[in-house]
Amino acid sequence: MKFSELKVGQKASLVKTFTDEDVRTFAKISLDTNPLHLSDEYAKTTIFGQRIVHGMLTSSLISAVIANKLPGEGTIYLGQELRFLAPVLLNDTITAEVEVAELREDKKIAKLNTVCTNQDGKQVITGIATVKCSQ
Amino acid sequence: MKFSELKVGQKASLVKTFTDEDVRTFAKISLDTNPLHLSDEYAKTTIFGQRIVHGMLTSSLISAVIANKLPGEGTIYLGQELRFLAPVLLNDTITAEVEVAELREDKKIAKLNTVCTNQDGKQVITGIATVKCSQ
Repeated sequence: MKFSELKVGQKASLVKTFTDEDVRTFAKISLDTNPLHLSDEYAKTTIFGQRIVHGMLTSSLISAVIANKLPGEGTIYLGQELRFLAPVLLNDTITAEVEVAELREDKKIAKLNTVCTNQDGKQVITGIATVKCSQ
Repeated sequence: MKFSELKVGQKASLVKTFTDEDVRTFAKISLDTNPLHLSDEYAKTTIFGQRIVHGMLTSSLISAVIANKLPGEGTIYLGQELRFLAPVLLNDTITAEVEVAELREDKKIAKLNTVCTNQDGKQVITGIATVKCSQ
């Protein structure tokens, strides 16, 4: 989408269920082998009581919405703030939603509110993305 | 590492070369199928001139340093700010370094400066992580 087509309040989202296989694959490519994500036995001893999905894996769904939908093709990712508010459990279904919050016309830069919500409507990650449109 | 063992200025790092296979795997599990990451032909038409590694994939190496090394086991990830300063190209070797910047004793919360640098010493991602120690 061109910068001139963006409007404050526009929204887009993607939904994904994060599986054990996703978590194990992400652990390999990120090197984040925290047993909280990989070992049931270890995870039981933590405050979470069970394995959780890597925060950066869940966050990547935000990046997917930005890259694939809003603003979509040609978007340059300048920054992302993330607040991890609640754990994402294995097989949770997460909706990542992006909403245009602010437009800076001279630089073709947009600020986007970014929220990940689980299947119970609970916000698990919030944040703000800063992106630049190439057109 | 326990909170009481942390000191401002402590550092830890991890190094990883991000390959085409990493990028294709990440595209699948994140749903971020931006052709800038996957198509040589498309990437040539962009300001980058070639395919680049997903920003959130490179950032995940920061999460790995935090989870595996500093503070390490038992760390709860509360937040991460990321600034994507320069592209990471396929087969770039990235060092993610984490440095303890600030300690808040009453809540066992630490702020960490987080920097990813490429093989030429160029900073590609900077940011700040907020973490809580479980002990």
